[in-house]
Amino acid sequence: MAPDVSADQARLEQMVTERVIDSFEQAPPRLRELMQALVRHTHAFIRETRLTEAEWEAAIGFLHRAGEISTPERSEFILLSDVLGASMQTVTVNNPVQGDATEATVLGPFFLDDAPEVALGGDTSGGAPGEPCWVHGTVTGTDGAPVAGARIEIWQADESGQYDVQYADGRTSGRACLFTDDQGGYRFWAVTPGAYPVPTDGPIGGLLESSGRLPMRPAHLHFMVSAPGFRKLITHIFVDGDEFLGKDAVFGVKDSLIKEFVRHKPGDATPDGRTVTDTWSEVDFTIVLAH
Amino acid sequence: MAPDVSADQARLEQMVTERVIDSFEQAPPRLRELMQALVRHTHAFIRETRLTEAEWEAAIGFLHRAGEISTPERSEFILLSDVLGASMQTVTVNNPVQGDATEATVLGPFFLDDAPEVALGGDTSGGAPGEPCWVHGTVTGTDGAPVAGARIEIWQADESGQYDVQYADGRTSGRACLFTDDQGGYRFWAVTPGAYPVPTDGPIGGLLESSGRLPMRPAHLHFMVSAPGFRKLITHIFVDGDEFLGKDAVFGVKDSLIKEFVRHKPGDATPDGRTVTDTWSEVDFTIVLAH
Repeated sequence: MAPDVSADQARLEQMVTERVIDSFEQAPPRLRELMQALVRHTHAFIRETRLTEAEWEAAIGFLHRAGEISTPERSEFILLSDVLGASMQTVTVNNPVQGDATEATVLGPFFLDDAPEVALGGDTSGGAPGEPCWVHGTVTGTDGAPVAGARIEIWQADESGQYDVQYADGRTSGRACLFTDDQGGYRFWAVTPGAYPVPTDGPIGGLLESSGRLPMRPAHLHFMVSAPGFRKLITHIFVDGDEFLGKDAVFGVKDSLIKEFVRHKPGDATPDGRTVTDTWSEVDFTIVLAH
Repeated sequence: MAPDVSADQARLEQMVTERVIDSFEQAPPRLRELMQALVRHTHAFIRETRLTEAEWEAAIGFLHRAGEISTPERSEFILLSDVLGASMQTVTVNNPVQGDATEATVLGPFFLDDAPEVALGGDTSGGAPGEPCWVHGTVTGTDGAPVAGARIEIWQADESGQYDVQYADGRTSGRACLFTDDQGGYRFWAVTPGAYPVPTDGPIGGLLESSGRLPMRPAHLHFMVSAPGFRKLITHIFVDGDEFLGKDAVFGVKDSLIKEFVRHKPGDATPDGRTVTDTWSEVDFTIVLAH
């Protein structure tokens, strides 16, 4: 509470909050809990900051512009949640630490259901432009036992930072699903990910710029891993050495998810004998599923 | 904080919040203050309620639907702010009590600039259907001195609860501006306001219904009063006896704004000699402007 608010004024403000909280008394229990907490925090925000009417109008205008630029393929509201760290906080609350289980991070706005299946060792790039990257590892439980038949979905931006849904031609690339073998192993070709900015042409771009924040996401590959009896894991791996690791616009980086992407010279032998005439990279990612 | 959160987990959650707060350190001072408070409250809401990922998705979907149903004439985001009492809290913070100055209440989504001017004693209804209502009073300062030439803008719903912007034909009615005379007096014909529901065809309607809340607003007339040297007053007057006074969907009612609308029989003489063949009403509203 700002110090120049009189006791009478503070009481009036508190009364407004209490009336709104009371109005949700008849809601079903969980909805009541959520709405009353939302009201309590929203009103505390307004009272603590002494929000002006012009600032309130600016916030309403911001939400309108967010709605106007959103499409089924582009969610400015997810992006808002992301850049406020609300997405990462929700992930953190819902994926408590469990032994050495691989840590979760944000889903992001680019996941699609029904990614095409590729065979183990296959190419998930679907023609996405970029340097080939051999991704391999094992899926285990927290007891170290391999998990056979785990479903791995991966999706990523190409070397120019574009996901397929951002292409004009509607093709699917840079996303696939595959299944671990009897030893829990997996392997596939992708492209070496590059850093990219979140969309900056909407109100969130303006907010980041006004705040002196970068819109960049460090280079990463998205993973979603599921197997019966285990908690579904939604995570990324990040490229060690990326200059934006400490400045992720959506706060998704965890130290345990930063991996060495080993760089190979043109002509270095590939693990599966594929001919790669230029440079390529390789990353090993052990995935430990929580229960 | 939920009691079943381990100290390690609580520390991880706190770290996420602190990283996001730090990211706004370079913002200009007022933006920094607002964004850091917003982040602090948003994260506390998520942590206290243990918001699930499904609930987060539902919130994102809610915001998308709010964006989709909004138009330049219909703001679902203002309505959201209204039904959460955020609008009324902002009004309360920005219009502190000042002696016996008339209290402020919410602007609502239906105000338009450039309402047509009518002469004192004129008809502001513009053909809006409803029972005639003679509105009169004086504008003064808190010292009781009359304020001559004060600009009064009024707008209202017709007897069926529709504002002109909700009509299909684009005509202007139920809104006007006029100016007080040398003694601070004002008088005009309007229509007796009726209670009406806020728009219920969007996500806010669903929220109110799920929460067991009524969408109704008690009958009211909107006033915006401005004069050089005085704080602009945005308020309503409400009809004493309205059944929804204690259940206003947007929390705009204040006791001091409830006025007796005196009902007259058909044939009762009108203050200005106008012929009214059916019933009519009359209300006296003294407006006291703060500095």
